Amino acid sequence: MAFMVLRDEHDSVQAMAAVDEKVPKEMIDFIGQVPCESIVEVQAHVCGTAQPITSTTHADIELKIEKIHVVSESQRTLPFTLEDATRREDEEGVKVNFDTRLATRWLDMRTPASNAIFRMQSRVCQYFRQYLIDNDFCEIHTPKIISAASEGGANVFKLGYFGRDAYLAQSPQLYKQMALQGDIPRVFEVGSVFRAENSNTHRHLTEFVGLDVEMRISEHYYEVLDVAEGLFNYMFEHLATHTKELEDICRQYPFEPLVWKIPEEKIRELGVGVISDRVEPTDQYKGRVHNLESRMLRLYYPDCIDLLNTVLTEKMSHVDDINTTNEKLLGKLVKERYGVDFFISDRFPSSVRPFYTMSCKDDERFTNSYDMFIRGEEISSGAQRIHVPELLLERAKSLQVDLTPCKDYVDAFRLGAWPHGGFGVGMERVVMLYLGLGNVRLVSMFPRDPQRVTP
Amino acid sequence: MAFMVLRDEHDSVQAMAAVDEKVPKEMIDFIGQVPCESIVEVQAHVCGTAQPITSTTHADIELKIEKIHVVSESQRTLPFTLEDATRREDEEGVKVNFDTRLATRWLDMRTPASNAIFRMQSRVCQYFRQYLIDNDFCEIHTPKIISAASEGGANVFKLGYFGRDAYLAQSPQLYKQMALQGDIPRVFEVGSVFRAENSNTHRHLTEFVGLDVEMRISEHYYEVLDVAEGLFNYMFEHLATHTKELEDICRQYPFEPLVWKIPEEKIRELGVGVISDRVEPTDQYKGRVHNLESRMLRLYYPDCIDLLNTVLTEKMSHVDDINTTNEKLLGKLVKERYGVDFFISDRFPSSVRPFYTMSCKDDERFTNSYDMFIRGEEISSGAQRIHVPELLLERAKSLQVDLTPCKDYVDAFRLGAWPHGGFGVGMERVVMLYLGLGNVRLVSMFPRDPQRVTP
Repeated sequence: MAFMVLRDEHDSVQAMAAVDEKVPKEMIDFIGQVPCESIVEVQAHVCGTAQPITSTTHADIELKIEKIHVVSESQRTLPFTLEDATRREDEEGVKVNFDTRLATRWLDMRTPASNAIFRMQSRVCQYFRQYLIDNDFCEIHTPKIISAASEGGANVFKLGYFGRDAYLAQSPQLYKQMALQGDIPRVFEVGSVFRAENSNTHRHLTEFVGLDVEMRISEHYYEVLDVAEGLFNYMFEHLATHTKELEDICRQYPFEPLVWKIPEEKIRELGVGVISDRVEPTDQYKGRVHNLESRMLRLYYPDCIDLLNTVLTEKMSHVDDINTTNEKLLGKLVKERYGVDFFISDRFPSSVRPFYTMSCKDDERFTNSYDMFIRGEEISSGAQRIHVPELLLERAKSLQVDLTPCKDYVDAFRLGAWPHGGFGVGMERVVMLYLGLGNVRLVSMFPRDPQRVTP
Repeated sequence: MAFMVLRDEHDSVQAMAAVDEKVPKEMIDFIGQVPCESIVEVQAHVCGTAQPITSTTHADIELKIEKIHVVSESQRTLPFTLEDATRREDEEGVKVNFDTRLATRWLDMRTPASNAIFRMQSRVCQYFRQYLIDNDFCEIHTPKIISAASEGGANVFKLGYFGRDAYLAQSPQLYKQMALQGDIPRVFEVGSVFRAENSNTHRHLTEFVGLDVEMRISEHYYEVLDVAEGLFNYMFEHLATHTKELEDICRQYPFEPLVWKIPEEKIRELGVGVISDRVEPTDQYKGRVHNLESRMLRLYYPDCIDLLNTVLTEKMSHVDDINTTNEKLLGKLVKERYGVDFFISDRFPSSVRPFYTMSCKDDERFTNSYDMFIRGEEISSGAQRIHVPELLLERAKSLQVDLTPCKDYVDAFRLGAWPHGGFGVGMERVVMLYLGLGNVRLVSMFPRDPQRVTP
């Protein structure tokens, strides 16, 4: 006895029953009447085939059906067929509108690619946590309902809370820092984050899953980068083992496997330096790696600008913001030069970072902060945070940020505060960019954007 | 070089420096001036002690300080001392008001018990996921912003969503069932759930972490109970290995270790039956176990009522709701009779279960559903769900539940639906009740209730 879905098997089951002389005509007719996608329970003998069957996945065995029972009958007309929804963009034939697929996601998820995407998403979270637990991180859960629009303010959802106003947290940023001051030296969180941003792009969602990390720093902010690199290296190595899922996705959405380590010949050819020297490189574009084994590229922000300036007609200064178009371009230039789809851009200008970011000791114009890129798109931001209340207030004042709603946050550093830093990762973006997909909605089971709040 | 907090060590550091003739008077004075809870960096020689030091944790080694540097100075007046906040309820001396502790949670978390509670919380989530991943469950993330107050309706938070109304999900119930119809046979979720319930009790929060499981059923709803039992057995076994944390908690909040398996002598003495027989027991209060190895108790709901009726003056019928006072009493009776703090009450009356619960085949008054109890309080509810759209509509109608806002949910079962069931667990309640704590706010880092939305 086994359960099965009448899917591609439908025709085969019918055909099989038809050629088997022992199967009564009533059963053949009955099977023919059951709609596709219905779930049936079958009692059958497993037999070897006289000659290989080419139209099925198992060529050398077949089932001799004795009993068949419909467990759940599907409606006869499907919103779309799985065959149509499985078609590649460049293939001929009917394609299914993406909105139609999202409207009945439970059907869309039965296509091999969509199903595999969500299995890979599960693995991303699993390996993220596994690495951190193995490295003495403690999982925390911070509140999503908060009393004040603490970070930024504009892009925040407001809700009614027993006669008062409350807000949905845009990130666990302030809370994970507060937790760290409670003598838990390393924390992480996997949780929902909410952004009331009216952005209708391929990479924005109003609700997504944030992977957040915060840790004490003993000597240098690079301890944070080392954890981040170690974590992503671990994730990428383990994700690559799920070949069945990767193949299912690649068949519908072709992508090149992610290269996250600089090829050894490139290291030698370019004379890539080792970051632990902590010396300013004299030669431009040399790049740095944490060590020659990790081979994960770190570039200083100004070096990224210089690299961009080699092709831009309108040159940028070292403290200018890099827009998303130029980020894509930078990703291309880095790939050409270093052979990698993954890199870290370190030492971001103060002008583009939030008030709580620690400045570089040697140059106030820059900060101990970085972004991480996959295939030219940002997936993670990290930094050392200011742990000195006076410095925090001073910095907020100079940036005209009102810290009144964040009084608790500032106070959390008044009772002895550990130097610390951390990073946040957009989970859906990691899945999307690891798989080279073009739309974040492909990896969010029930995506939320300004237009969409159902199903 | 090492970092340390000047805490209980403060006096010792000062004393140590004072007796060491090589330490200049200036340094002794300097150390004396640094407030408690400040973080200092110390350069010192580790030496053996001439005679054991009784006032410190390490009796036979001491540090000879050469340099000391204040990394972060605490303010001089603390909201409370850790010594006061560590005191047991029954001890003499100053205690700290719980609200005061919550107002500066980052200080409260430095007490051994509070710190250990959050470390144990991290382990609960870790083992929950580990068991499920090991058993082929796939992690999903369902939306927290939903378009309609789908479940219940009254206790739901409303928010503004780009000019429309939206709501915060009270549970991932409907979505996890929809995900399952997307050909992922077993799913789980760890995520925030929101309840706008104006309950100010020791066990209610308006925001907490839900641990949710949903799975296909092949033959019988007990497959769900078997997973639930296996999961909790795994969690309890692994939690018990964290002896340091358990001791730290027990010192401030004394509790008896949880007994979750019926002692073998009780099994023999009472003639406890095995559930897989699936026969109605003829003798009352015999109880059932899944098998003689698991030894985890399952009682039918009517048997629970009968057990209660042995002591209640006002007798209850088999389909009456058991209120929380009687749940506590039931927990006591079960403990006395079976020797366990943990049990499952199976076959709940239809009248007390939501519209989507599958009825028992043999008796429509009861359902394929259960609650799980620890120390007389509910921690988890589970059930087989109705997967037949017509049955779902019929049942909703008879209970006068309007399914208009849940159209997508009902439709998800129209394209071939797997028989399925699952359960939800309140994460904070598991931690609270495993540790025998009296207030759920002790295990929520920044608790949310009708009165509290800060820090």
